[in-house]
Parts: sequence; C-alpha cells; structure tokens
Amino acid sequence: MSETATAVHTPEAGGSYVPTDRTIPTRGRPKASYDRELVHSILDAAYVCHLGFVRDGAPVVLPTLYGRVGERLYVHGSTGSRPLRMAGERREDPGLPVCLTVTHVDGLVLARSAFHHSVNYRSVVVHGVARQVTDPDEKRTALDALVDHAVPGRSRDSRPANAKELAATAVIRLDLEEVSAKVRTGGVNEEPEDLALPHWAGVLPLVSRYGTAIPDKDLDPSVALPDYLAAL
Amino acid sequence: MSETATAVHTPEAGGSYVPTDRTIPTRGRPKASYDRELVHSILDAAYVCHLGFVRDGAPVVLPTLYGRVGERLYVHGSTGSRPLRMAGERREDPGLPVCLTVTHVDGLVLARSAFHHSVNYRSVVVHGVARQVTDPDEKRTALDALVDHAVPGRSRDSRPANAKELAATAVIRLDLEEVSAKVRTGGVNEEPEDLALPHWAGVLPLVSRYGTAIPDKDLDPSVALPDYLAAL
Repeated sequence: MSETATAVHTPEAGGSYVPTDRTIPTRGRPKASYDRELVHSILDAAYVCHLGFVRDGAPVVLPTLYGRVGERLYVHGSTGSRPLRMAGERREDPGLPVCLTVTHVDGLVLARSAFHHSVNYRSVVVHGVARQVTDPDEKRTALDALVDHAVPGRSRDSRPANAKELAATAVIRLDLEEVSAKVRTGGVNEEPEDLALPHWAGVLPLVSRYGTAIPDKDLDPSVALPDYLAAL
Repeated sequence: MSETATAVHTPEAGGSYVPTDRTIPTRGRPKASYDRELVHSILDAAYVCHLGFVRDGAPVVLPTLYGRVGERLYVHGSTGSRPLRMAGERREDPGLPVCLTVTHVDGLVLARSAFHHSVNYRSVVVHGVARQVTDPDEKRTALDALVDHAVPGRSRDSRPANAKELAATAVIRLDLEEVSAKVRTGGVNEEPEDLALPHWAGVLPLVSRYGTAIPDKDLDPSVALPDYLAAL
C-alpha cells in the first residue's frame, strides 16, 4: 500500500492500459496491474472515491460519489463546489488535473513480526484532467450512471432530475487513460526465522454487506422493497 | 459529500479545532464540524486513509495505513517511496504539503427523486505539512501506533522491528491542526411533492465487520486466537 503506477489506455492496448513514464512505480508491492477488466471490476464494486486536486498549490482530497460509463468516470456536485468550478465549463478551459482513487479493504494480514503486518486490498488510481460536462444528454447519462453505479437499476425507479435540479448540478468527466490497479491478496509473508515465534498469525477478513433496509417514515406501505434492492 | 472545511487546533480551543481561512466550506451539506472528539473517533475507527500530495504540479492520491498518537498522525512506507522521500528527513527540509482524508461509508440514502440520493458517511480531512520522523524513539512509537491502530494490543504480541527493518522504513508525521469532520446520518430528504411517488425510499445501511480469522498455514496449533483479535 504505497506507490501506485498509472497507465495510458490506447485502443491498440487490447485488454490493458499501457504504462506511462510518470506511472511506473518506483517500488512497492504488490506490482501494478494495467488490466482493464480488473480495473473496471474494482471501480464497479465501489461508489465512493477519493478525488484529489490542487488548490493554491496544496493538495485537497475529498470523498465523493462516482459512476462509470465505459472508459469514462463521472463525478457530480453542486455547481458552487470548488473542484467542479475549477474544472471549467467552456470548451477552451484547461480542465482540472485530478487523481481519483478507489480502495477496497479486504482484510488485515497479521504477521508474527510487526514489520510484515499488511492489508489485503484492491485499489485503482486514475490520473487525468477532469472537465465539466456541458452536453445535456451526456449530463443526464452521467447522472443515471451515478445512481445506477450505487444501485444497479435504481435510475429507472426514481424521478429523474428536473430542469432546476439539472441546472444546480455540475458533472465532471475523467477519461480512463492513465490507470493502474493494485491488489494484495493471500496470507502472511514472514521471515523464516520468525515462524516459531509464539504469536498468532493469519488473516482477518473484512466483510462489507448491506443491513436491513430502513423504509422512509413517509413510505406508502403498499410500496414493497424492489427486487434490485433486496438482491444487494 | 463535497466541499470539506478544515480548522486549526489551538490549545485555547478547548474541545474543538478552530476553522481557518482556507478551510471554511464554500457550501455543501452536511456542515463541517471541528469537534476534536468527533474527529478522533472517526480517525480511530479506520486504519486506511487516502493521502494526497502534489508531484510535478499534479495531484496524487494513494491509500495507506496510518496511526494516531494524540494530536499526531503517522504514515509509514518504504524509504524509497516517493511521498516519503519528498517529505525530507533533514530538519531544514520544507516538508511535504499533504491532505489526509479518512471516510467511512455507513449506508445508501435512496430518495424517490434521483437528485436527493445520498450517502450516510463520516469523514475527516486533515491539511498540513508532513515531515519525516528521524528520532528513533518517536519512530518506534509511531510504528507501534500503526499496528495498534488496526488491532489494539497487537504491537505487544508481535516481534518489534529490528535495526534493519527500522532502517528500511520511513515514517512521516502530520500534526492535527487544520482538521474538519463531516457526518451525514439519518433518512431521506425529499421534496414534499415527491412523497406520493410510487418509488421505494429509505436507507440501506452498510455494515463492515470481520469474518472468521484464517490462521497462517504454518501456525503452531497450540497458539490460540488471542482475546484482542477474538473481540474484534
């Protein structure tokens, strides 16, 4: 869980993003992967990312919802929010350099030595320039994707944004071009001479799951929990 | 889940960090909190943060482990890793401006309108300048804190780092000075005219818990699962 590499996707790349100069990791394990299917699977299993950008020369990292449509990620927010304003809305605007990172923590790896303690995880790091989405059709598609990314099928079972809501919402787009994934799985890596130490060692899996759905207090009792929610 | 404010902690502040100029949110709900106890509780309930820094003018966001000792956070990594090298190890080094963000996702908020979909979450954003820890005692304290942050009591039940491991590990420190928290809890916020729509609405809680511990294949069968792990 340290340095992460990035990569550029070209159509020629087949199933992988292509590593780029700024993106080869200096070191660190696990090694970076540029496999597109792996990247998509990690992105699609979460709906909150950490979005980094630079403001007045200093880094800012904010948690935010995202959605994916093919090789594009979308992030939305109030039209007044700083990163969305900074992304610009005119075609000639330079856009906002961002780093969008998604991480799943899958378990704790407890070694006999403090040094070899680790975490099983899956992460994706995307570098690029975010730009505001101004095309109304793309904006609607992006907002549907944001809702469906969290709950597949939900956008069809909710009231779409009206003109006022659309106007109050800014959406930025980030293309999946410079992308890498890192995945750590499995058990303990230990120095051979530590194996006889009297400390428990192994993996403590971390599991995230949905609890029982809590209906809104004003929900019409005749509205049952939809199948797409019950299936989560 | 958008703009987050930060704050400066002064001894005069009592139980709160003091908001600063660069840290008052431009907008966004929930409002930022500067309550120290709340900040600590959010930080202590996680052990993976997203660390942002600037490299060649562009943002980088990496997931990494952290620990807390009072009003200081520690992050560790290989001495060769880029952010740790950039933090510098000499007293006169300027240090590395960072933004360290911790987020818990507690549930999905499903409104009848797509616009009012939301997430229940708790997050902390820390701004500051990270510096390498060079004092050997502080480094050992920090490494213990990193292990104990994930599993309280674990540092006493594992082999401490030896000289070679200590030399290979870099630790950076970030003081809790410019800090804020955001917490969204509760149910759906809905336009009154949407209440009669035939869509299910409510909250889907997201629960993280540990699964059954998986012992290392080489574990001496006489070593039982310690109480501090069974309690997690």
